Order: sequence, then structure tokens, then C-alpha cells
Amino acid sequence: MRATTIHAARDIRLTDVATPTVASPTDAVVKVVAGCICGSDLWPYRGENPIDAGQTIGHECVGVVEEVGTEVTSFAPGDFVIVPFCHSDNTCPHCRAGMTSACQNAGFTVSGQAEYSLVNQAEGSLYRAEAPGDDEAALKSLLALTDVMPTGWHAAVAAGVRPGGTAVVVGDGAVGLCGVLAASVMGAEKVVAMSRHEPRQEIARAFGATHVVAERGQAGEDAIAELTEGVGADAVLECVGTDQSMRTAFAVARPGSTVGFVGVPHGVELPLRRMFQKNVGLRGGMAPVRAYLDDLLPKVLDGSINPGLVFDAVRPLEEVADGYRDMDERRAIKVMLRP
Amino acid sequence: MRATTIHAARDIRLTDVATPTVASPTDAVVKVVAGCICGSDLWPYRGENPIDAGQTIGHECVGVVEEVGTEVTSFAPGDFVIVPFCHSDNTCPHCRAGMTSACQNAGFTVSGQAEYSLVNQAEGSLYRAEAPGDDEAALKSLLALTDVMPTGWHAAVAAGVRPGGTAVVVGDGAVGLCGVLAASVMGAEKVVAMSRHEPRQEIARAFGATHVVAERGQAGEDAIAELTEGVGADAVLECVGTDQSMRTAFAVARPGSTVGFVGVPHGVELPLRRMFQKNVGLRGGMAPVRAYLDDLLPKVLDGSINPGLVFDAVRPLEEVADGYRDMDERRAIKVMLRP
Repeated sequence: MRATTIHAARDIRLTDVATPTVASPTDAVVKVVAGCICGSDLWPYRGENPIDAGQTIGHECVGVVEEVGTEVTSFAPGDFVIVPFCHSDNTCPHCRAGMTSACQNAGFTVSGQAEYSLVNQAEGSLYRAEAPGDDEAALKSLLALTDVMPTGWHAAVAAGVRPGGTAVVVGDGAVGLCGVLAASVMGAEKVVAMSRHEPRQEIARAFGATHVVAERGQAGEDAIAELTEGVGADAVLECVGTDQSMRTAFAVARPGSTVGFVGVPHGVELPLRRMFQKNVGLRGGMAPVRAYLDDLLPKVLDGSINPGLVFDAVRPLEEVADGYRDMDERRAIKVMLRP
Repeated sequence: MRATTIHAARDIRLTDVATPTVASPTDAVVKVVAGCICGSDLWPYRGENPIDAGQTIGHECVGVVEEVGTEVTSFAPGDFVIVPFCHSDNTCPHCRAGMTSACQNAGFTVSGQAEYSLVNQAEGSLYRAEAPGDDEAALKSLLALTDVMPTGWHAAVAAGVRPGGTAVVVGDGAVGLCGVLAASVMGAEKVVAMSRHEPRQEIARAFGATHVVAERGQAGEDAIAELTEGVGADAVLECVGTDQSMRTAFAVARPGSTVGFVGVPHGVELPLRRMFQKNVGLRGGMAPVRAYLDDLLPKVLDGSINPGLVFDAVRPLEEVADGYRDMDERRAIKVMLRP
């Protein structure tokens, strides 16, 4: 099959690799209908994560079940499915506590930007949905449920967003925008998107942002202080993962609040003394996607959320390298790929 | 008046200093009935915090109101009062949210090991109680409410201890022991005290510990894993503040749980990648003592908690230097001082 592989920093190729097959009774193979590029794929793309030359890349996809192992009884070939980027058996103690991303039998999608993808714990991981057919907007929102929307949701859950009060979202990537949507759905009264890019500000407003702060650093912190009458935000969603974004997050958080973080941390030094003195907590990590789908899929289906708006570009799989370049250069927010 | 002062590492003296007086309309002066030495006083004592030679030391005391400023209307000379180590106006946005230790007008007790102590925001800070007279056990428990018991309670609140499940307490100092008591009162089914000192293990058991783990490092982590069938603890209370104790705390926490930390961090490097991968959060800091007294004083008065047990030594104020030495050498858990 054709699959996206990475060979060095900024060297993305479409390569012929072996088509995955069912090797374990818990496996399923999914024929990809749509995949996409994640902000976290840009870390290896930029050479900031180690690269195993020639490995496949891409962990988000939706598609049609092609083949299932003998222990997979709830899904059959032909089913349209959402594939959470992290696979979980949904029965271990961590899964039962809602922490599916820490499943004792966890696996990950490794060829989401390809023609086929292997799911390790298909019975516990997959989520059936009506096939969207030619409805590209519906397809985008289903694809957003494999990672980016549940990840933004996780930031809001981790930050403890509750009705009323102020939620600040640091980061205007696709995850940050989904964090804005999550905070708005959860009932925050003021939802502040920190963004200086006009197209992203527009989506943030469509997702429920009541305020946009374009300033960064001290000026950005001052703007949040003014918005909160010097008190600070009740909940802060850190959706980037850099030292600068984490500093901003802690600077704008009110005493007793929590920073919810979902950006894979890179070079972050936590302000531990400040956390202690201000009683500001930190929670987050890899989103338990499967656990959130019971909540999120109905919201997509009834139109109350439309996370697919984060896909501002669609390309055929052949143009995957262009998709990476566009995201790297911030010409695209998030690129959907069609095999 | 006579007050405890610190002059260099391990140089604690009883010195004549100016008796505090009401300087601001929000002040009160309290005649100390009992003060004590805190584990955090040992940081400067050991030379691990900077020392301003000759400064007074000690932030915990109970006593009798001697004099009040014009804006202090709820307290009068002669009242027996608990003095939270952090003073708060109890009206600012942080206080109203229960985060009194981050009060916009915060102050601190600075001569708790002395004859008199100044309270900066007396109206919002002080808590009246019946004078315990000659009942030394009652006096100890009231004194414990100025810092150590609310701090252990804060660790349990921050860690999210709930009925059922397993709470692990790292640290068997007075705060850790109060953390055991808090986790037990909050209904944890298994309360695990990590302690290798027999007298401390005894108090931990009296406070409700169902298990004691004497091992440290990997062996300690293995013991917790066995106790939790490999899942990890539902809540972890970190009551020391060193890198080693923090590592242990994160190692034994189950995915999705929170480490509640109340030990002032010294040389701690947080395992941020592990926190992200396991979704283990960190919350805590200076305890909002005043906010917890509504809950804790009634529990002391009805006998359902007896935090005064952490005081295993009582000395006259003259022997304060011996008290520090005993705590430094772990011959005493916590020393009460009587002026």
C-alpha cells in the first residue's frame, strides 16, 4: 500500500510498504477514508524529535473495517469507524477509570496517513458511525474525533472548566481551537483565545471565544489580568507544549486553579516555586479519546459542535509532503488527506 | 519580649526584641500561649535556605488577644484564638474562592516562637476557641490547627482523596502524619503511610493508616504496586518536598490521579514526560488554613480528630534551641514551646 514515511527532517515521502494484516485476534485493519496531519507530527518533521528513517507517520484516521481478528465481535468488514489514535482494550482498570490512553494493552495508530491502518485493540477502541458519504463537512468532524477534538476536550477537563468564570486557551493550533470549543460547550462565561492569526481568530470566535488576545509575553499576561480584574483565569488550557506557552499559562492562572496541558512538552521548565506559592496545579497528558467519544459523537451528530472546521485544507494523499510544508509554515491550520 | 531568632545554620537563640504593637488598624497582637517548630523551619536551620541573621523565626502559635486595631471588631483582648500561619483579609477574590493563603493582603506570623505575635489581618485571620486551660492535649490539637493539620488536609484535598480507593502518603513528618489523618477522615479505604520510624508508624496507625510501607526507593514503589494490584494509588500526598519524595510520589500514582504536594519544594525536578504519559497531575502549595478551620475545628472539638498527637515533645521557650536540635536529629516529631 501507499503510506507516508519520514526519512529525515522535512523529508516526507509517499512510499510503498507492506499492507497491514490481522496478526493478533484483537486486531482489525481499516481501509482509510480520510487521515490528517497532527501538530505533533511537526516535531519530528522539524527535527526536534528523533527520526527512525523510513518509518510510517500519522496517527489519525477514519475509515471502513477491512478485516477483523477472531476476538473482535462488535465490528465487521464494511463498518465505518472512528479510530482513536491510542488503542485501548476498554476493560483494564485504567480504561474502566476512564483513562483509556493509559490502557494496560495500549497501542497506537502508526499509518494514519496511508491507505490502510492497523488497530491493535479493535474491540475496545473502535467507534462505529454512519458513513458520511460525500458530506465532506461531516467527514471532517468525524476525523476530528480521532484526536484533535478529544485532546482539546481533555485540556478543558484537566483544567477543570466549569460553568461561569473565565477560561484562557494558550495556543491557536487545531488543538487550541478545539480547546476553545470545549470550554465554550462546558459553559465558561468568558472564553479567551490567545491568538494573533486572523484566520485562527475567526475559527476561535466560531467556536465560542468571547475574547481574543493577540498579544504575547508580558503584554498578553497584562491583557488577561485586565480581563479578569487582576484575579487571573479560573481555568487555563495549555495547548502548545513549549516553555514560553507554559510560562504564559501559569502567569495568567488564578490561585487555586489548574493548568490543563495537552501539548507534548518540549524543553519545558516548570515554575514549581510559583506553582507552590500560587497553588496552581498542572494536569493533563494524552487524551483518553475512546472514553470521550460517548460524549462527543452525539454532539457532532446533533450539530452542537462542528470541530471539522479546524481542517482548512484538503489534499489527496499524494500531496502529503505539501500538507506538512503548509502546516509547518502556518499556511494551513490542519490538513485532511484523502487516499 | 523574648523571641526566637536565627543567626546562622544551627544557631538558634532566645533574644530580647521589641514587643510587637498594633501599627495598622487591621492588626492585632496576640500573647502566645503555645508555639511550635515546623519542619519548614529546619530548612534555614540546616542552612538550606538563606538566613537574614538575627531575624525572628516561627510561624505557628495560639494565644490570647492582647490588643486590636480599630478595624478589628470581632475580637477583643482576652479572647483565646488560633492564629493561621498565613494571614488573610477573608474578603478578597482569592479568599472568597477559599484560597486564603493567596490573599491579596496576605501576611505571615513571624514570631510564633516568642512571647507575643503580630497578626496583620486579624479580622479575617483569627479564629476564636474556648481556652483549653490546663488541658495540654486540647492545647496541642488547637495549636496543630495553625498549620500542620490544615497542611496535611490540603495535601489530601489537592490529591483529590475520595471515599474508597487507596491514598498513599509520602513523608512521615508531622505534616505527613496529618495527611494520613486527613485521608482517613475523607474515607480512603486503604491509607498507606510510607514510614520507617517506629514511633511515627504508631501515630500513623492511630491516625487511620491501614498499611505501613517501610521500604524506600524501588522497594517502596514495588510494595505500593503490590498493594494496588499493579494499578497504582488513587491519590498521593507528597509531604516532604525533596526530589526523592516527589519521584516516589509520581512513581506510585495511578494514571489519571493527582499528587497533592505541600512540602516546600527544594531541588525538585519534576518528571514532566512521565506526568504527561501517565496523566498524573500535581496540585498543592501553601495551605489556605483559615478556609479549612470551619471544617477542622468542630472535628477537633467533637474528638473525631486528635491532630495534637504529632507533638511528642513539650519544652519551655528557653529550650527552643534544644527543640530544633531534637527535630533536626529526628529524635522528636514536633516540639511544642511554652513561653
